[in-house]
Amino acid sequence: MTVVGVIGGGQLARMMIGPAVELGLELRVLAESDNSSARDRATSVGDYHDLDTVMKFARDVDVITFDHEHVPTDIIRELENSGIAVHPGSAPLAVAQDKIVMRQRLTELGHPVPNWAVALSPDDVTEFLSSHGGRAVAKLPRGGYDGKGVAVISDPAEVAEWLDAGPVLMEELVEFSRELAQLVARRPNGDIATWPVVETTQVNGVCAEVTLPAPVSGTPISERAAELGHAIAHGLGVTGVLAIELFETRDGRLLINELAMRPHNSGHVTIEGSITSQFEQHLRAITNVPLGSTESRHPWAVMVNVFGAMDTERYARLDPLSDVKVHNYGKDAREGRKMGHVTATGNDAADTASRARAVAGIFSADI
Amino acid sequence: MTVVGVIGGGQLARMMIGPAVELGLELRVLAESDNSSARDRATSVGDYHDLDTVMKFARDVDVITFDHEHVPTDIIRELENSGIAVHPGSAPLAVAQDKIVMRQRLTELGHPVPNWAVALSPDDVTEFLSSHGGRAVAKLPRGGYDGKGVAVISDPAEVAEWLDAGPVLMEELVEFSRELAQLVARRPNGDIATWPVVETTQVNGVCAEVTLPAPVSGTPISERAAELGHAIAHGLGVTGVLAIELFETRDGRLLINELAMRPHNSGHVTIEGSITSQFEQHLRAITNVPLGSTESRHPWAVMVNVFGAMDTERYARLDPLSDVKVHNYGKDAREGRKMGHVTATGNDAADTASRARAVAGIFSADI
Repeated sequence: MTVVGVIGGGQLARMMIGPAVELGLELRVLAESDNSSARDRATSVGDYHDLDTVMKFARDVDVITFDHEHVPTDIIRELENSGIAVHPGSAPLAVAQDKIVMRQRLTELGHPVPNWAVALSPDDVTEFLSSHGGRAVAKLPRGGYDGKGVAVISDPAEVAEWLDAGPVLMEELVEFSRELAQLVARRPNGDIATWPVVETTQVNGVCAEVTLPAPVSGTPISERAAELGHAIAHGLGVTGVLAIELFETRDGRLLINELAMRPHNSGHVTIEGSITSQFEQHLRAITNVPLGSTESRHPWAVMVNVFGAMDTERYARLDPLSDVKVHNYGKDAREGRKMGHVTATGNDAADTASRARAVAGIFSADI
Repeated sequence: MTVVGVIGGGQLARMMIGPAVELGLELRVLAESDNSSARDRATSVGDYHDLDTVMKFARDVDVITFDHEHVPTDIIRELENSGIAVHPGSAPLAVAQDKIVMRQRLTELGHPVPNWAVALSPDDVTEFLSSHGGRAVAKLPRGGYDGKGVAVISDPAEVAEWLDAGPVLMEELVEFSRELAQLVARRPNGDIATWPVVETTQVNGVCAEVTLPAPVSGTPISERAAELGHAIAHGLGVTGVLAIELFETRDGRLLINELAMRPHNSGHVTIEGSITSQFEQHLRAITNVPLGSTESRHPWAVMVNVFGAMDTERYARLDPLSDVKVHNYGKDAREGRKMGHVTATGNDAADTASRARAVAGIFSADI
């Protein structure tokens, strides 16, 4: 039996548990704490910044993969140098781990990105702002997630602390009509599968809702998103699932916002919405098994994130015979914490979204 | 977090793992051996015939349920007497555990069953045979499964050993046009959900294929099967999933063949075929959460069991982007052993079945 080791015990590792069981894989997780979301399969608890901890965990598994992008590149290279299979590998991961490297590589490969520059000083920031209408996006190159490490600024003073720590990525504030995400999976042998592009809605920089397919399917935009998915997965040599966050501009262009080389919040909707979920596909890809169909099971699927509490008392408020599926990440409730998600499927986009929102509302009300 | 304890570590316990994770339940399994199918969640290994072993396992869980019917009734009663929640309870389970008790109870409740009698001696068998055309079905009351403990006989000598051990259930050999199964779930509060009746195909007494829905839907037969499901679940006070195996006779009657009070092979097709799978529904029912929708996701879903081997080399033979889902029970291959199942979904019954059979064939070929 193939043993898959996941570094990181968050909800992404947790949602690999079911598909791993069905595929006949043994899943082991190196978690940060005893009470991680993926604690059911946390065979080790330790610090992923510590080479010995990671090496000890990785020694007995067939392939290493990740719940997040934060494992230091040096440690990933060390695993590879010891002959351990790591998917995605250190080379593509280095691109996902550092937003400046990502902008450089995507620009080299000729892919469409927002205007960007590296700022090393307040003067650099001022210059970028003045050539972009006085407002722009500043990003910490490493370690950000869910809106953290990203700020819309109009004055270099707003990023003074970041600049003290190192370079800051400056990007134009894209006037987008909406945000999309293209999910792709790639096997080590080069086989690629793309799901239909989805639409994502962010609130305060955090994903709130995802609609599969984005209401652009069959138009040139969805074809271009899929082509971009192929090109980036292939160009960067990604193995496993790759999520490409995209801006659709008001003038109909696609610009790449972010890359994630792992299952991604924009892909949770595939659990019910698609023949093969992103979690199953990631496991198939990294164990080099033929990829599964990415066709949709329903005309529409809508996922809504839950920030609130998912206790028994709230489950009791669900409608009898509800067709909205609830996913609970098993976390302790905390203000603003992503606790789970719900997904509705159906034949009508508006009705499907409204059913998903109603159930998310049960769990998301004040705690 | 609610803790569910499952006695028995077979594939039914295994297939509860994924849904338990998504519902936010902690699943613990008391397995028979270290290498059980549900080993990923086997928090205890021991003999379920031993009261101390079972009590020790059950003490720290919120609800006990089962992977099989073989836990002695005395032990289940002992759990209940100690205040432990057990679903299904000892009263309904006693009916599922003993085929003679089952025939008695169903007859008392006025439900349609084949002609039957209890044989205590070869003379009783001879009498039953002579009043039923010389051939009949003999069944061991307890412990049978997958065709074991069931025989079509024409001479009492064929069941001499069984008679030495105790009473034997004699049943008419039903001339059926096909076999159906009605899946039901019931909460402790009395809420009931029924899935559309499925058609099952047996080979040598073992389930080979299941089609959802049985090609009888919308006809009186499917309504009668659902009504029977309601009546039996309610009449026996079943909690959790109940599977009712049915004969459809050539003259259009429904006769009850067997009952199982747990997820059942005839319900594996609900994993992809239905909004709520039997495994999720069983967990919802026994933890007394509102039941989920049992509507179908696709016009047709066909499940085919795998008897063979499910190794990496066979996975490699899957078609790229196959839409047939593979479920691996993680067992060591052995002649005739149920190793897993595959499920196809689609718009055309014949095409869906043929795609499922093709993939099952990859795994079921000689080992």
